[in-house]
Amino acid sequence: MKKVVTFGEIMMRLSTPNHARFQQSTSFDINFGGGEANVSSSLAIMGIPASHVTRFPDNDLGSAAINTYRKYGLSMQDVVRGGDRIGIYYVEQGAAMRPSKVIYDRANSSFASLKPSGFNWEQIFEDAQWFHFTGITPAISASAAQACLEAVQTASRLGLKVSADVGYRSNLWKWGKKPNEVMPELIENCDVIICSKGDAEDMFGIVPNDEKKSFKSVCQQLTERFPKLRKILTTKRGQISASHNTLVGKCWNGFEMLETKQINIPDIVDRIGGGDAFMAGFIYGEIIYQNTQKAIEFGVAASALKHTIEGDFNLSSVKEIEAVMNGDVSGKLRR
Amino acid sequence: MKKVVTFGEIMMRLSTPNHARFQQSTSFDINFGGGEANVSSSLAIMGIPASHVTRFPDNDLGSAAINTYRKYGLSMQDVVRGGDRIGIYYVEQGAAMRPSKVIYDRANSSFASLKPSGFNWEQIFEDAQWFHFTGITPAISASAAQACLEAVQTASRLGLKVSADVGYRSNLWKWGKKPNEVMPELIENCDVIICSKGDAEDMFGIVPNDEKKSFKSVCQQLTERFPKLRKILTTKRGQISASHNTLVGKCWNGFEMLETKQINIPDIVDRIGGGDAFMAGFIYGEIIYQNTQKAIEFGVAASALKHTIEGDFNLSSVKEIEAVMNGDVSGKLRR
Amino acid sequence: MKKVVTFGEIMMRLSTPNHARFQQSTSFDINFGGGEANVSSSLAIMGIPASHVTRFPDNDLGSAAINTYRKYGLSMQDVVRGGDRIGIYYVEQGAAMRPSKVIYDRANSSFASLKPSGFNWEQIFEDAQWFHFTGITPAISASAAQACLEAVQTASRLGLKVSADVGYRSNLWKWGKKPNEVMPELIENCDVIICSKGDAEDMFGIVPNDEKKSFKSVCQQLTERFPKLRKILTTKRGQISASHNTLVGKCWNGFEMLETKQINIPDIVDRIGGGDAFMAGFIYGEIIYQNTQKAIEFGVAASALKHTIEGDFNLSSVKEIEAVMNGDVSGKLRR
Amino acid sequence: MKKVVTFGEIMMRLSTPNHARFQQSTSFDINFGGGEANVSSSLAIMGIPASHVTRFPDNDLGSAAINTYRKYGLSMQDVVRGGDRIGIYYVEQGAAMRPSKVIYDRANSSFASLKPSGFNWEQIFEDAQWFHFTGITPAISASAAQACLEAVQTASRLGLKVSADVGYRSNLWKWGKKPNEVMPELIENCDVIICSKGDAEDMFGIVPNDEKKSFKSVCQQLTERFPKLRKILTTKRGQISASHNTLVGKCWNGFEMLETKQINIPDIVDRIGGGDAFMAGFIYGEIIYQNTQKAIEFGVAASALKHTIEGDFNLSSVKEIEAVMNGDVSGKLRR
Amino acid sequence: MKKVVTFGEIMMRLSTPNHARFQQSTSFDINFGGGEANVSSSLAIMGIPASHVTRFPDNDLGSAAINTYRKYGLSMQDVVRGGDRIGIYYVEQGAAMRPSKVIYDRANSSFASLKPSGFNWEQIFEDAQWFHFTGITPAISASAAQACLEAVQTASRLGLKVSADVGYRSNLWKWGKKPNEVMPELIENCDVIICSKGDAEDMFGIVPNDEKKSFKSVCQQLTERFPKLRKILTTKRGQISASHNTLVGKCWNGFEMLETKQINIPDIVDRIGGGDAFMAGFIYGEIIYQNTQKAIEFGVAASALKHTIEGDFNLSSVKEIEAVMNGDVSGKLRR
Amino acid sequence: MKKVVTFGEIMMRLSTPNHARFQQSTSFDINFGGGEANVSSSLAIMGIPASHVTRFPDNDLGSAAINTYRKYGLSMQDVVRGGDRIGIYYVEQGAAMRPSKVIYDRANSSFASLKPSGFNWEQIFEDAQWFHFTGITPAISASAAQACLEAVQTASRLGLKVSADVGYRSNLWKWGKKPNEVMPELIENCDVIICSKGDAEDMFGIVPNDEKKSFKSVCQQLTERFPKLRKILTTKRGQISASHNTLVGKCWNGFEMLETKQINIPDIVDRIGGGDAFMAGFIYGEIIYQNTQKAIEFGVAASALKHTIEGDFNLSSVKEIEAVMNGDVSGKLRR
Repeated sequence: MKKVVTFGEIMMRLSTPNHARFQQSTSFDINFGGGEANVSSSLAIMGIPASHVTRFPDNDLGSAAINTYRKYGLSMQDVVRGGDRIGIYYVEQGAAMRPSKVIYDRANSSFASLKPSGFNWEQIFEDAQWFHFTGITPAISASAAQACLEAVQTASRLGLKVSADVGYRSNLWKWGKKPNEVMPELIENCDVIICSKGDAEDMFGIVPNDEKKSFKSVCQQLTERFPKLRKILTTKRGQISASHNTLVGKCWNGFEMLETKQINIPDIVDRIGGGDAFMAGFIYGEIIYQNTQKAIEFGVAASALKHTIEGDFNLSSVKEIEAVMNGDVSGKLRR
Repeated sequence: MKKVVTFGEIMMRLSTPNHARFQQSTSFDINFGGGEANVSSSLAIMGIPASHVTRFPDNDLGSAAINTYRKYGLSMQDVVRGGDRIGIYYVEQGAAMRPSKVIYDRANSSFASLKPSGFNWEQIFEDAQWFHFTGITPAISASAAQACLEAVQTASRLGLKVSADVGYRSNLWKWGKKPNEVMPELIENCDVIICSKGDAEDMFGIVPNDEKKSFKSVCQQLTERFPKLRKILTTKRGQISASHNTLVGKCWNGFEMLETKQINIPDIVDRIGGGDAFMAGFIYGEIIYQNTQKAIEFGVAASALKHTIEGDFNLSSVKEIEAVMNGDVSGKLRR
Repeated sequence: MKKVVTFGEIMMRLSTPNHARFQQSTSFDINFGGGEANVSSSLAIMGIPASHVTRFPDNDLGSAAINTYRKYGLSMQDVVRGGDRIGIYYVEQGAAMRPSKVIYDRANSSFASLKPSGFNWEQIFEDAQWFHFTGITPAISASAAQACLEAVQTASRLGLKVSADVGYRSNLWKWGKKPNEVMPELIENCDVIICSKGDAEDMFGIVPNDEKKSFKSVCQQLTERFPKLRKILTTKRGQISASHNTLVGKCWNGFEMLETKQINIPDIVDRIGGGDAFMAGFIYGEIIYQNTQKAIEFGVAASALKHTIEGDFNLSSVKEIEAVMNGDVSGKLRR
Repeated sequence: MKKVVTFGEIMMRLSTPNHARFQQSTSFDINFGGGEANVSSSLAIMGIPASHVTRFPDNDLGSAAINTYRKYGLSMQDVVRGGDRIGIYYVEQGAAMRPSKVIYDRANSSFASLKPSGFNWEQIFEDAQWFHFTGITPAISASAAQACLEAVQTASRLGLKVSADVGYRSNLWKWGKKPNEVMPELIENCDVIICSKGDAEDMFGIVPNDEKKSFKSVCQQLTERFPKLRKILTTKRGQISASHNTLVGKCWNGFEMLETKQINIPDIVDRIGGGDAFMAGFIYGEIIYQNTQKAIEFGVAASALKHTIEGDFNLSSVKEIEAVMNGDVSGKLRR
Repeated sequence: MKKVVTFGEIMMRLSTPNHARFQQSTSFDINFGGGEANVSSSLAIMGIPASHVTRFPDNDLGSAAINTYRKYGLSMQDVVRGGDRIGIYYVEQGAAMRPSKVIYDRANSSFASLKPSGFNWEQIFEDAQWFHFTGITPAISASAAQACLEAVQTASRLGLKVSADVGYRSNLWKWGKKPNEVMPELIENCDVIICSKGDAEDMFGIVPNDEKKSFKSVCQQLTERFPKLRKILTTKRGQISASHNTLVGKCWNGFEMLETKQINIPDIVDRIGGGDAFMAGFIYGEIIYQNTQKAIEFGVAASALKHTIEGDFNLSSVKEIEAVMNGDVSGKLRR
Repeated sequence: MKKVVTFGEIMMRLSTPNHARFQQSTSFDINFGGGEANVSSSLAIMGIPASHVTRFPDNDLGSAAINTYRKYGLSMQDVVRGGDRIGIYYVEQGAAMRPSKVIYDRANSSFASLKPSGFNWEQIFEDAQWFHFTGITPAISASAAQACLEAVQTASRLGLKVSADVGYRSNLWKWGKKPNEVMPELIENCDVIICSKGDAEDMFGIVPNDEKKSFKSVCQQLTERFPKLRKILTTKRGQISASHNTLVGKCWNGFEMLETKQINIPDIVDRIGGGDAFMAGFIYGEIIYQNTQKAIEFGVAASALKHTIEGDFNLSSVKEIEAVMNGDVSGKLRR
């Protein structure tokens, strides 16, 4: 099978154990995560060949990050080493009405200071079928945006499917340009995006133009503006508490709004990476099932399972996800 | 008070801490468990003299197993040492819609290779009032089945109450005979069994013969086939998620189907051993209350509490179980 | 801003990790707590200058206690050293229908053997606006009761607001006098108390005298008996399970019964100190908002958040509490 | 084989993990220990039937203590329940030139408040061959001293060997009498004591009366004063650092001073209980080898191994101790 | 660079943390190890392409083993899945004069039941320069011995360097043949072996035939018997205690006995895998330095560093090993 | 007593537990440290009033840092909040011949971007007697160097003793100026410095000018160049291994070279901060003993004890340090 390639920053994630607050914790659990690598590592675990492209400092922390993904079968062969530091994000796990908190410390990371010339995209995309990136990458630095554009254009030219999670992060985009100066050129090359109503407004200035302020009207405008776009995804998360959410997945396929049943996600272990697990599940579904309704159902089931697993990415097998997709949410003991 | 004796394999249980997946855990918590010893150790903790009979390798792991039960007051004086290894089962604790997973590694254990002649049942049953075993024991090996039969026949002859959990385990029974070639002779000697509809079919080929496919009709056929049987127990478990179950206990006493109220079991800490805790509670109730309705109510309360405790057996006192039995499920702080 | 002063025993709290039972735990987590210091430390964390007065042994455990509070900005400058030991309380964390258990070992503590002359209350109350104590302090020993009376009278004379949590602890009051011989003189000097129906009967022999057996009628009698009293608080805790409570706060202000909406508290991490967090929140509200309705609403929000935090006191910021007070209980991830 | 009986207080031992200081530790490891139970539990682990007599509070901590010893095969059948609390001692593990620190909190324990009438010594000593106690027991309280005297006299009358570790603890003996008013009557009934030069002076006012200030001259005076005494033991500990000691064992047998070779004890894991392990080893040697030179050699080897084991008592088998006794201190991997 | 291939069983290693005894530990740390994979994973960490061939059960534990090695860059692409279980070995970490203990539970493992036809050695050795195995593999089962012979013969035929650690394990070799019926045919194909005097006698019946009973005379006989042999390695371990060893490496190159200086290894963290780290270091030295004296010096330095690292294989970089090889054993802080 | 003030960066220190390598650790222990705050916190623990001046980001990690020092009694009242991030340093604890490794990630920290105008030195030095800084501070950034100069000049003008640890850090000094352009102006205001031979050359270009290349000749040149200098300290560390060092302290007082006995430091728990503990001990000695020989002896004893304690600063009491200073390095158990 041809591989899926992702491109983006991976941060070291330092999280307090057992719901401890930052003020009281005496240790951090170490994980690694990034919106794009979360997708490709989940795919690798599901048996889809996948490779992630990023840049790490040439120290033991960079090596530890590489090893972590290699462990789960994600190819790190195209990772570049250099720069000063690995970005960090700190997580305080919430509970009930107390939200989880994230503190970012990612400025001046090895990824932010990457040199676009360091990536030979033609070679990276050899034997690849899909390229995925997120709106975080162009938000990090001018050079990251530049490398991302080169990747997208090369992927598109070579005939890969291109997908993007356009999620807008207001605490980034500090390098000089605004999202709407950068994102359109990237999205023009995309076949699939995941994009909420808010993202559409923040990134492209698109607002619902019908009475119901519907997501559908946003999708219609998006496909008009970006003619290559075939599918627009979104998820609707119900926030009952930090420990209890619900999720629905949707996909506008150009004709109709496909939608999953709502899945109940109680007793959350770790909510982070839930959206990336949905995206990975969707890509799996598109590649294997070749059925978009099934792809979003698989994506939502994958996302639900991710919430029960510590860490950024989804350590669930296809078999496990399919069981949930097929309605078995009883958690019945497997002997 | 005369003691309760149980016979069966005890395995070392290695479980991942904090809901970790097997793929990510760097340590295992050590517990010991087995369907029969779970019953007798729970009884010992409730103050009923109890003794467990099994076989362990003559190494530090066998000794650690013995010490663990001795700690809680269960007599291990009739344990035999020998053979090659202690059986193991690995547990990955699930959460929400993710099931807990069990991997068994029990083949060729010291128990499986036991010699029936190694057990002097007459002496073991001195000063005993009750013998309990499960359908797992005869499923393990020919010699285990043989020893079990000798135990059951001796117990019956000496006038002990005999009970069995007939639970069918499809991944065992690999030693040559089928359950229905072995189990009937064992159950003929029983006064009490715990047996689901599925077990009755798998073990004895008995299916409901009334329109409603009722458990009652199964019970009636069972008591016809096994005239010594006085009571047939079952539990009905509602599986809302890996972290949330419900439980009802039932007992056919030859005349009517006694039934408990449904108990709600949210925020499950460890579901394993829940059935054994019910059985232990039932035996306690029969011995102390001499009232079958109360016995199943006490059994269900005991089982519910077991779900809040890490490990295979029920570290709950009679007083605590009675509080739950009497309806106090508020979990109100005890100062 | 003028400071809030509290007076009372601080115990070392030794609790089993991960819901373990006392019988199975191999370690204790160390925290410190006491009904009064829980209030002042929460206030210090909210930015209100606060000081706690108590007595610790002159050993490393006493020093560790002092350091713990100093860490969170509570002044310990008026703590006295001496006596034989720090009182201890052991906590076994419950789950679902299994209650948390507390074992006290506080007799003969340094606090119980304090000398009233060791406290220069005039000096302690310099630059203070509020004094808070609880019914536990006079229950501990004759000398503690004596010191408490001196503190209350001095505070009252100097014009500080005086508040008390009159909570009756049946396992204390062993030093010779009964609550109703001691408490009235203390409460006479109070402006605010937190007092349940049960406390009112145990402490003052006051029972509802209307048909509905209402708390309001208790309040009316209390204000008649203690003319200085301006506000009487209580909370109504719904005990769904050890892991799930609900809470309502009420305040009789002499004219009407103010009441908060009920807040839902699922997935409890640590229930201990919930009442003290309410009291701290109320004092904060009175000082900053100068609005009693808002004060009880802030108190209930503070209490709810406390339930999500390990340890006796409330590591929540004003901003976090206000978010909950304003209805955001979604626990939505804060990036 | 007839059993060995010991009598004395057992405390809960709370120690900081990983050499942490009291000021920085956030948890305590839980062990139990007491000079006398350390001896009998070590004997039980070596396969000598042994029983310990003490008094515990009737709460979960008392039960946890009982369970801990039962785990290792020590009989707790004659333990009495009652009183207010279990005594505690806190341990901060040192390293290199930093000493380990112990904080005692044992006043008013269940043992200290025991009632001598609660122990039926004739029945306790049924089927016993040896009684061992220490100088700590009579130092705790008048009633403990009284019970100890009754035990010693009964044991002596029934023909048991009686041994004592006379070790003087200056921070006890607060109940009114001085050691030299109490100890002589106890030691009169002893066959064997462990007693350093300092103990002999503190307890009996005996000082060396020869030029060399020799321990031998102390022994000669002791045997003169206590004619029943047959053997006087002592150990000589070399304190190179908190992590490195040496040990020599000595025994005056009435004729000559037997002495072991010095054993080197580097990389100490836990030094506490080293002396008790020596005593247990000596008793084992006397019973099994019936050779005093071998008994002290076994005792020193046992003590050395104890230093490599966390906790108060010696989890070493006879085979392991004999290997060290026979000179194998290479620590060579056992496959 | 061409790769190094190893073949042999990998076991799950379960070890007690913090020097705990099996009797007291409540958890096991999880590592994986095997004499051959220890060599190839160390090489991979040093940057030499390496691949390990083995057989794992098709369950989560087999996958966890694969992931562990993949993490460190060792290729697992030729691993076969099947069979019933992963072999286990339990480790109790010793200290000072207390030896570490190992309990094996490896019978009936997936490796032991491998089918020789499952391995396509020609394909496995494509692009390889070196094949390494140990005397453990043929000792496990007839089929393992058969597969090993096929591997050795193929490697030799294809011109790979072949090396073996002939170490005799007395607790294996239970499948019917004796070492001297099996090993000679394997060693005939070897260029390099590591073989102690004892191994030579156990495996080949070769004893020193000179007056000094020298290892040299053993080597001379070995090279006579196995003409392809070019180098015979051995290490001399000084066992001061479980926590302190010394090491010397030797190599008979057909002409002279090369020898390293003795290296001091105090404060041992984990002694297991020390010999395999030496072998890996030697192979590195032969490939990169092409200088046998330097190769054994690098091997001894690598082995010394391994003793400071938890787990079976050597997480040391070439740079770190070279520093030790060049005499820097000061452990001076690297900022 | 007047206080000691220090100024410099505090970093969050993330260290691997149990000697784990960065590649294998799954968690970091959290401590905080900095060469200057290590001195003042040690002084605060010894009972000397002390205050540290630094700049932290206005987030939970900055607050956690403040709380950590407040816990130990160090005043943080003059800490400024602002900037982007807290600097980090990662520690991998070595063992034996494996060095501990440090990875710095401190660029762009809140301290590096401080504004000199943010510190009101006149007010900060009110009621102060001593100001201490290190050569790290001016190496961090131009603004840090500027603030340091203002502090030093103000302190000198106000008559405080000024001391500096001039230690040269080659991986800093990236902001444009070289040490010898900056340091002389700072040292001109110092009364006491700690300065090795290497530092003298790196910072001031001073090399020994006598035959023996003596430190004394360096000191003489230093005092000539900086006439205000009264005392020049240095330590001589013997590096036997990562776990075993020796230490000697020296002080040139203008007339003679005072020197301590060498202290042996085996079984090192944490070597970091050893030099700062020496400096703190020296300052204590100068203030309290007013005797320079005793001051360096106290300093060396303090430093030795620091090596037995996890974390950057010295949790030792004066009494403990004096015991070591007086020769008690036996580590004998303190009951």
